[in-house]
Amino acid sequence: MTLTPVTPAFLDTLRTDIPERCFRPIEPRYLEEPRGHWQGQAGAVIAPESADQVAVVLRAANAARIGVIPYGGGTGLVGGQIMTDGPAPLLLSLERMTAIRAVYPEENVLVAEAGAILQDVHSAAEAVDRLFPMTIAAKGSARIGGCLSTNAGGVNVLRYGNTRELTLGIEAVLPDGRILNGLTRLRKDNTGYDLRDLLIGAEGSLGVITAAALKLAPRPAGEGTALMVVESPAAALSLLSLARDHMGEGVSAFELMHGTGLDFLAEKLPQLRRPFPENPHWMVLIDVGLARGLDPAEALETLFAAGLEEGLVSDGLIAQSEQQRHEFWEVREQIPEANRLIGSISSHDISLPLSAIPDFIERGDAILQGMGDFRLNCFGHLGDGNLHYNVFPAKGRHKTDYPGARDTVQRAVHDLVHEFGGSFSAEHGLGRLKVEDLERYGDPVKLQMMRAIKTAFDPNGIMNPGAVLRA
Amino acid sequence: MTLTPVTPAFLDTLRTDIPERCFRPIEPRYLEEPRGHWQGQAGAVIAPESADQVAVVLRAANAARIGVIPYGGGTGLVGGQIMTDGPAPLLLSLERMTAIRAVYPEENVLVAEAGAILQDVHSAAEAVDRLFPMTIAAKGSARIGGCLSTNAGGVNVLRYGNTRELTLGIEAVLPDGRILNGLTRLRKDNTGYDLRDLLIGAEGSLGVITAAALKLAPRPAGEGTALMVVESPAAALSLLSLARDHMGEGVSAFELMHGTGLDFLAEKLPQLRRPFPENPHWMVLIDVGLARGLDPAEALETLFAAGLEEGLVSDGLIAQSEQQRHEFWEVREQIPEANRLIGSISSHDISLPLSAIPDFIERGDAILQGMGDFRLNCFGHLGDGNLHYNVFPAKGRHKTDYPGARDTVQRAVHDLVHEFGGSFSAEHGLGRLKVEDLERYGDPVKLQMMRAIKTAFDPNGIMNPGAVLRA
Repeated sequence: MTLTPVTPAFLDTLRTDIPERCFRPIEPRYLEEPRGHWQGQAGAVIAPESADQVAVVLRAANAARIGVIPYGGGTGLVGGQIMTDGPAPLLLSLERMTAIRAVYPEENVLVAEAGAILQDVHSAAEAVDRLFPMTIAAKGSARIGGCLSTNAGGVNVLRYGNTRELTLGIEAVLPDGRILNGLTRLRKDNTGYDLRDLLIGAEGSLGVITAAALKLAPRPAGEGTALMVVESPAAALSLLSLARDHMGEGVSAFELMHGTGLDFLAEKLPQLRRPFPENPHWMVLIDVGLARGLDPAEALETLFAAGLEEGLVSDGLIAQSEQQRHEFWEVREQIPEANRLIGSISSHDISLPLSAIPDFIERGDAILQGMGDFRLNCFGHLGDGNLHYNVFPAKGRHKTDYPGARDTVQRAVHDLVHEFGGSFSAEHGLGRLKVEDLERYGDPVKLQMMRAIKTAFDPNGIMNPGAVLRA
Repeated sequence: MTLTPVTPAFLDTLRTDIPERCFRPIEPRYLEEPRGHWQGQAGAVIAPESADQVAVVLRAANAARIGVIPYGGGTGLVGGQIMTDGPAPLLLSLERMTAIRAVYPEENVLVAEAGAILQDVHSAAEAVDRLFPMTIAAKGSARIGGCLSTNAGGVNVLRYGNTRELTLGIEAVLPDGRILNGLTRLRKDNTGYDLRDLLIGAEGSLGVITAAALKLAPRPAGEGTALMVVESPAAALSLLSLARDHMGEGVSAFELMHGTGLDFLAEKLPQLRRPFPENPHWMVLIDVGLARGLDPAEALETLFAAGLEEGLVSDGLIAQSEQQRHEFWEVREQIPEANRLIGSISSHDISLPLSAIPDFIERGDAILQGMGDFRLNCFGHLGDGNLHYNVFPAKGRHKTDYPGARDTVQRAVHDLVHEFGGSFSAEHGLGRLKVEDLERYGDPVKLQMMRAIKTAFDPNGIMNPGAVLRA
């Protein structure tokens, strides 16, 4: 299906239904992505104010065979929001649909429009003493529609699930302008195929999610955070198991950090306080939120003692104040920034079956050591089997000293992930960056059925062309 | 698409790949359903032993345009497993694929074949000190494939989610015999469209799920159960909110019971001990599973005291032993049996936004009172907004005394559910019973997209013809 570029004449046809203020200038921010890997292009930017207006735009674009790039906060890391070539597309920004349409504290439900900033959703939940638990580093600019379209993960998946598990219903506009009214607040609804979950995670390639009914959670009565030094990733996994035996769902986050990450922090962000005088080889951050009657610091103390007895931990710190909790989290949250300042050769957002992680890390180390003089910073959401497995230049060298290494390193890492039954995109999605990986590693039948679904929803191929599936 | 009946010649073509023992006699059990509403028919029953054999059968049936009814435990309540007319179909029973393929206690994952009995999945999880939390009354005969295909719910959805939320990956055979290898054990995997959730809940109309990787949960350190008398459904909802403020995810089940149900128990199952000397008008059963360091009975005592102070509860019993917990649950679990012995005029498996429940119950009462001399037993999974809203004859009368009432009552109830934004099938699915309801109450765009997906997966319409969508 051949697409055509946006033209001024096409835009003029929209002006009867779309107010002038919705036609936005093509600012650079729409064409950049956080890591600066690609430069996008667009023939026009339109920011509709309602699902009906989105429907008008898509119906017209579909009739004219114009590609449409749905645009949220622009924080995606895989190029899903950036079209680098092809006929100039229409960029459909959700930035003017930011309403929190309703909050139902007694139901633990919040209905937000797709353009609502994640942080604002957090605040709206907090205002009624509830929690919207999905959180990511980009929460200040990421929009909920993008979180839904990429099924965003983050640090609380262990306890609360991905964005998918936190969504009850969606409103979406299909490529031909039909509006899917699925904004239910029901916890149980077995009436036909699960279109909600098909659109969630489809990265805007099947339609545009315009609003969602999201699950809130009660706020835990008390929260606590600890850093514990562990012998190895295997010990970290045993400690996770122990923590869940003690506290069940009370374990909200369980993050693995490697000494290399701590060294990067010391090198690039020396103002951050080191938690331990010597950077340990492996460390975990444990965050818990417990029911009434339990003291989180005491529960973490008990866990530490049990871990010590089983030989899983050798040192630990338990936050004694909110300030300390914040400091511990700061260590974890600044690692990506330190990584950025060091400059990675290749970054990987991978997931593995939990029990495969120790072997994977060992094999990965050996393979990369054989490939060149690298530093490896492996950290992330251990409780979800999700590692950010990033490869850096040796100390004193720069990524530009490793020409061509990115592709070979990435291929080696993804091959190994595949061998272990893992995923080459745990939480970031495919975007345009990993379309080839899906073709290489994905189940061929899955790929065939994805193409069949794409054709059923978007026969003209106007939705986010080239993302998820080859255009 | 016209289907043709199964013939002996067709069966003979399968004998090269399918062992003789897989060809089963057409026993009455395959053609009945639990409530005895319909009588099914089948031209043959085949019970394959592997996904490859399922693929052989489907490929051949697809080529010959023969309808295929996937058959699990036969416990479904909406006729999804029963084809009453049309060309004699092939019944594909999963009864010979019962293996628990693997258990990964350290990952909290279990891989089961579709024919595994739910109770056996429970046992396999318990054997490694884990919990597979999805449980339904039919657990002794329901098979996991049927639970997946209907996205079964039950009493623990409040805490652990429906079957969908408890599934990590599936293996499935598509109507043309292609095998979808999606048996991942990953917690995070954002690599393309969510085919897993499309097949879950599709009631065998898009393909046959042959195995699944299921999430296990750590077993709570301590469990407790209470019965509390509440003033009204509104008070019950406030009590639920309070319980979750106190115990967070620790609230595993929150079941509403009406005095009518307790009267039915007294009338039909008098050997069951009455929990309270006088049957209360409304009562809830609360089940909790808490972390180490908390005493469940004490936590329930604290909750009761807080509920008393807020005027939500007027009486209560807290189980002091496992035996008593069992007795309390027995009250809840025997209500459907008492209902069966009374004989309902019409039963409804509905869900509502939580905050709409009190109004719905009041309006429903008024409407039904205006329609005839009925007794109403409304009970169920209040925490999920899921009510079993069942209408019975007046005392001393029989359902046969109300000719034609079933259709009018059902229509009135479903109309009201629809008005409140609820679902006419919360956990049982559509089967063949509710295909018309979907057409009447469902979003038209949803229905169109369901048909498009059906065509993409099953262009010849061989899979469970007439279930979910009109054939």
